[in-house]
Amino acid sequence: MDISALLTSAGINTTTCIVLFSLYSVLRKQPSLVNVYFGQKLAQVRSKHHDNFRFDRLVPSASWIVKAWEASEDELCAVGGLDAVVFLRAVVFSIRVLTVASIICLFLVLPLNYFGKEMEHKEIPKEPLNVFTIGNVEEGSKWLWAHCLALYVISFCACLLLYFEYKHITKMRVAHISESLAYPSHFTVIVRAIPWVEEDSYSDTVTKFFTSFYAPSYLSHQMVYRSGTVQKLMTDAQKMYRMVKTTRMDQHCASTLMRCGFCGGPANSFKILSDEPESSRGRICFDGSDLRKKECGAALVFFRTRYAALVASEALQSPNPMHWVTDLAPEPHDIFWSNLSVPYRLLWIRRIAVIVASILFVIFFLLPVVFTQSLVHLDKLKKIFPFLKHIAQRKFVEQLITGYLPSVIFMLFLYIVPPIMMVFSTLEGAISRSGRKLSTCVKVTYFIIWNLFFAIILTEAALDHYQISILNLGDPRNIPNLLAKAIPTTVMFSSYGISIAHATFFITYVLTSGWASLSCELIQPFALICNLFYRFILRNKDYSTYGTYTFPYHTEVPRVLLFGLLGFTCSVLAPLILPFLLVYFFLAYLVYRNQILNVYVTEYGSGGLYWPLVHNTTIFSLVLMQIIALGVFGLKKSPVASGFTVPMIICTLLFHEYCRKRFHPVFKKKPAKIIIEMDREDEHCGRTEEIHLKLQSAYCQVNTSKALNVQKTVEHIDSESESDCTENRNVGSLEDVENITPGKRAIQLPVSWVGHSHFEELHVK
Amino acid sequence: MDISALLTSAGINTTTCIVLFSLYSVLRKQPSLVNVYFGQKLAQVRSKHHDNFRFDRLVPSASWIVKAWEASEDELCAVGGLDAVVFLRAVVFSIRVLTVASIICLFLVLPLNYFGKEMEHKEIPKEPLNVFTIGNVEEGSKWLWAHCLALYVISFCACLLLYFEYKHITKMRVAHISESLAYPSHFTVIVRAIPWVEEDSYSDTVTKFFTSFYAPSYLSHQMVYRSGTVQKLMTDAQKMYRMVKTTRMDQHCASTLMRCGFCGGPANSFKILSDEPESSRGRICFDGSDLRKKECGAALVFFRTRYAALVASEALQSPNPMHWVTDLAPEPHDIFWSNLSVPYRLLWIRRIAVIVASILFVIFFLLPVVFTQSLVHLDKLKKIFPFLKHIAQRKFVEQLITGYLPSVIFMLFLYIVPPIMMVFSTLEGAISRSGRKLSTCVKVTYFIIWNLFFAIILTEAALDHYQISILNLGDPRNIPNLLAKAIPTTVMFSSYGISIAHATFFITYVLTSGWASLSCELIQPFALICNLFYRFILRNKDYSTYGTYTFPYHTEVPRVLLFGLLGFTCSVLAPLILPFLLVYFFLAYLVYRNQILNVYVTEYGSGGLYWPLVHNTTIFSLVLMQIIALGVFGLKKSPVASGFTVPMIICTLLFHEYCRKRFHPVFKKKPAKIIIEMDREDEHCGRTEEIHLKLQSAYCQVNTSKALNVQKTVEHIDSESESDCTENRNVGSLEDVENITPGKRAIQLPVSWVGHSHFEELHVK
Repeated sequence: MDISALLTSAGINTTTCIVLFSLYSVLRKQPSLVNVYFGQKLAQVRSKHHDNFRFDRLVPSASWIVKAWEASEDELCAVGGLDAVVFLRAVVFSIRVLTVASIICLFLVLPLNYFGKEMEHKEIPKEPLNVFTIGNVEEGSKWLWAHCLALYVISFCACLLLYFEYKHITKMRVAHISESLAYPSHFTVIVRAIPWVEEDSYSDTVTKFFTSFYAPSYLSHQMVYRSGTVQKLMTDAQKMYRMVKTTRMDQHCASTLMRCGFCGGPANSFKILSDEPESSRGRICFDGSDLRKKECGAALVFFRTRYAALVASEALQSPNPMHWVTDLAPEPHDIFWSNLSVPYRLLWIRRIAVIVASILFVIFFLLPVVFTQSLVHLDKLKKIFPFLKHIAQRKFVEQLITGYLPSVIFMLFLYIVPPIMMVFSTLEGAISRSGRKLSTCVKVTYFIIWNLFFAIILTEAALDHYQISILNLGDPRNIPNLLAKAIPTTVMFSSYGISIAHATFFITYVLTSGWASLSCELIQPFALICNLFYRFILRNKDYSTYGTYTFPYHTEVPRVLLFGLLGFTCSVLAPLILPFLLVYFFLAYLVYRNQILNVYVTEYGSGGLYWPLVHNTTIFSLVLMQIIALGVFGLKKSPVASGFTVPMIICTLLFHEYCRKRFHPVFKKKPAKIIIEMDREDEHCGRTEEIHLKLQSAYCQVNTSKALNVQKTVEHIDSESESDCTENRNVGSLEDVENITPGKRAIQLPVSWVGHSHFEELHVK
Repeated sequence: MDISALLTSAGINTTTCIVLFSLYSVLRKQPSLVNVYFGQKLAQVRSKHHDNFRFDRLVPSASWIVKAWEASEDELCAVGGLDAVVFLRAVVFSIRVLTVASIICLFLVLPLNYFGKEMEHKEIPKEPLNVFTIGNVEEGSKWLWAHCLALYVISFCACLLLYFEYKHITKMRVAHISESLAYPSHFTVIVRAIPWVEEDSYSDTVTKFFTSFYAPSYLSHQMVYRSGTVQKLMTDAQKMYRMVKTTRMDQHCASTLMRCGFCGGPANSFKILSDEPESSRGRICFDGSDLRKKECGAALVFFRTRYAALVASEALQSPNPMHWVTDLAPEPHDIFWSNLSVPYRLLWIRRIAVIVASILFVIFFLLPVVFTQSLVHLDKLKKIFPFLKHIAQRKFVEQLITGYLPSVIFMLFLYIVPPIMMVFSTLEGAISRSGRKLSTCVKVTYFIIWNLFFAIILTEAALDHYQISILNLGDPRNIPNLLAKAIPTTVMFSSYGISIAHATFFITYVLTSGWASLSCELIQPFALICNLFYRFILRNKDYSTYGTYTFPYHTEVPRVLLFGLLGFTCSVLAPLILPFLLVYFFLAYLVYRNQILNVYVTEYGSGGLYWPLVHNTTIFSLVLMQIIALGVFGLKKSPVASGFTVPMIICTLLFHEYCRKRFHPVFKKKPAKIIIEMDREDEHCGRTEEIHLKLQSAYCQVNTSKALNVQKTVEHIDSESESDCTENRNVGSLEDVENITPGKRAIQLPVSWVGHSHFEELHVK
């Protein structure tokens, strides 16, 4: 691939991007698509009554960019929660570091690479990409100090920025905890593996245990019930009902159904219950003696103070660690009920099974990697399989196959990874939806870095250096011998290989996967198709119930981290990738801000737990960059440059260890000091009793089902917002609703209630 | 090496053992050596007043064996603490498993090996050892199912026994915690990294913090002071004083010096303090304003209840995890003061430095390994270095060099490892002496397994298969190529190598290192020499102050674990090692019981924390045995046997994971239930106030110095034993002192006080 081919590819992608971005600016103005592009705004609809967006209406197309650009961090935090801020900070961090890297690499390293060897240069458009990489520098060149210097500057900047980011995000996390005064999760502990005692129900056992050992602080508890067939049938029936009918259900009935629709008793019993909100409805509702059999060995235990709950969650309760396992509870909307009823004694084996399955999945996934890689090396393939020559005779076809097709195929393959990893995380037994997403995110990150980076480089190097050996594979007894030869040499050359052979692949990957994914993110094709399907095929006008999603951190964080990794590892060796990456990150910054502000609802959050992952992956990328550079310096026979690289690696690792000590514990445990101070503030304000009352009805096992959630009525919202201590404190009037502390549940309204009269004010923003 | 050579070696070692054991039975009767062989009895001297050992005196030599055999587990636990019981249980476990392994391997596997190939057998004494190993079985033999069956039986027995042992030891640990009602450590939390506040001393900061956040449960605190030059000078002066003079110091002065000899103030101030035991002496003593500068950022904080201390120790106190780091305190005699004054912010870097140093140490240690290995392979060496032929011409010299010398050299080299690892653990920042010993033990175990097992096998295999290649090393450019060839083949053949080439080395190692080390342990050469040195060179009759040690778990546990590893890995492949190992473990059982009962004092204990190490290492040995067997089955072309081995490996790993979940948490945290019940019992008995009073004088920074410790007087002991709640509860009269809960400090008495009148009753046991 030469510069002209690269520019062609870049041109195609830029055009695609512009077209799609324009398409987006048109689509978002369609009233019928409001639920696709304004899910978040719909959730916050009442706050928009008094916003004056009249002026913005006059600028139809680029206004969303301006809005996205102008939103402050507080605003984003309010809308998207701490996780959104952390994610955007990761993007900003990448922009900052890559800007520094671009400046030093494009102005210092790139010319040195280009003029590294005494050779006759062609015209620049016909120059192959190799001449811009470190591969073009002579062995033993004295100019390698420049590469080493660039490495030092990038590493130093990255570490400095990482430190301040980690510090800032730790502060934000602490603030997030201390500001969330009304979170019921702070008072609640999940107890699992309750031992079975003859003659007593689980509930009695819990009462006995906690009144015995936590008498001063124990408030009450709520059992977790097996999600039996009755419940499933009911949920299904309700879904069917809503799918066919658009008329609203009787609100009162719906709201009681949500709370106590579990036991299937007569409706009037619900009425009585809902008239007595202060009684713990769940328990009365399930008090039938036959329902005891439905109890799981798990319960939510409520404590009088946050500190008591924190202490109970951290202690080892019983001399048998497989009994009375405690954990801080997730938020009511975050809790993942079906995993709570999984017997605790099965969890460890589930976890092992998932690890094994993940490893097998990664191995299986090497096949598409090898396949796409072989497409990039069409010239080598042609030697091995002569019949390919006929197919790839035309230059255009060849360019398409080598330049574009591999990453497209790859992307399509990669689309199946996050759902599979999500299933794995579910099976693993995550007790919260945010925890499940975080766990998926970690898995996808490992997967993507391993498969996209190492597997590609290694198979490439193997293809490169051993194509002839592979052809002679006739005798299977040669394989161990071949491997014995291949592995060490592969490892040695792979560090070199990246600079030369991979620049092409990775640049096209950034262009196709990166830029295209952003356009895709804007357009939301899946939600769009669903919307059209419901409207034109099912003729269902209540399309509001479909197309609202939470932010897909588990796909977007790994992608951003992968591009960061590419930026670091390629920066010094093949600096040509940097401008493309910078463009990607700038677009990502705008697009993701827009999406967080407009599209995704924030039902739950992990409270910034994504940052340690970002931090660790970045440190990994840095060290990898340094090790690869070390290898390349070694191959280029520059002992000075190699010598200077080693202390850098050590310093980076020490820095990582320091950060782990200094910041990471806050992301694992809640600081006692903060929690105690919050308890005091509660006492000081006299809120304690009120909180205790609300606590007992905060969690309801059937309540959190997304489908039911949407049906919440206006009355319901009113009562919710009144019952919310934080909102009472922060929000003076409806105009201030934007200031609602985020990370809480965003309450979704049926569009039928919002009414089309409000629509005009919504969709033009 | 053939059978006759092996028997020669065994004969030499058996004779040596018998001679040394007899020597021991003579030496232990010498009155002047009582402090060498009866350190523990000296500590417990008062309990022996009424024991009637008259009958035993008539049987002079083997009586110690009978005594050691007869001692019950409770007795051992009382004398040596839980750690001693755990250690002996590890030995018993090895005996049990190896008995099973011996039965199946000697009666089923050994004959199959011997008649594995159709060959003419020589007379058995001239038979080389190889014919008894799996190396003698034909490729593709149908009899390999027997080896596989033996593997299954051994693995199953080992796992079953491990499970019950772990369960039993967990119970013992819980009982140990719940019985230790008067331990001051339960009420005490070590706080480190106290932030420095202008205008306040550290002490004031601690008071403010804990009265603010732990007001209901905070009792008082005691600062840790920098161990300055004054203290060092004082300690040195005291040591010198004792070394030169044998007259007893003024007892009262000594006891006050021990408590408050830090600030160097006038002696009468101490008098006043010691007359008021209820005031917190340490704090009053150090209350001079200039002494504030000596305060470290560390303190011992005392709480009203055990549970409060437990909770405070487990919580993350501050949003900055590098401030207010809390930890449960060790026992007063266990605490390692000098590491407490190390600034906490330096600890992480110290820890990293120690890890790096340990790795370098292991690498450096490969040299003696390679050296000794080359001696074993004299025949190969002779080919490489022809001049060796002249030296090793005589058969006796050759046998000596190949059979005995390597392991002796090796053993001598290995003697320097534990002290170095102990220094590493000290630098690492252990806050308790037991923790330091445990950490050393872990390091030595890793070291010894790596160096003695893997390094030997790998260098051996390398020597074996690549001696010719090594000779052709003339061109250094060949090295990477050579390595590339060597590593995979080495790994493949090493599993095979163990059975054939290593039987010799490992058997001689068991004979020399194992048997000899036990004799050595009995004789206590170092203490003996010290004793003689003090008596005959220094003419110091107060030899009681020297030669009392705590049990060296950090050298003995790794040795036992290594022999266990050898037993497992060699059992199926080279069963001839098993009888020698069994003899070793039987002797070890007797010798260690005797030593624990008689020699070593128990000043501190970890409360059974050695068991997880034993468990993990045993599982590692099991899996290694299975993997090596898998490799050998593969080389012997028995797919059935290989196929059956794989599920066994998986099951073993799953079993390990289960045990980690089921038992290990109890070894990391104290169960809240137990602690709360203990608090209740205190309240019920009305002991609380009394405990609080004693708590404040329990820890004294200068107190625990070993040299000073010995000088404790009779009055002191009386007050100590009275002040001990447990003893008050359990011990009715002096006759029952043997029932004192162990793991506590064993108080050492000066022999001058014990007097020679008691001696007769002591030394003949």
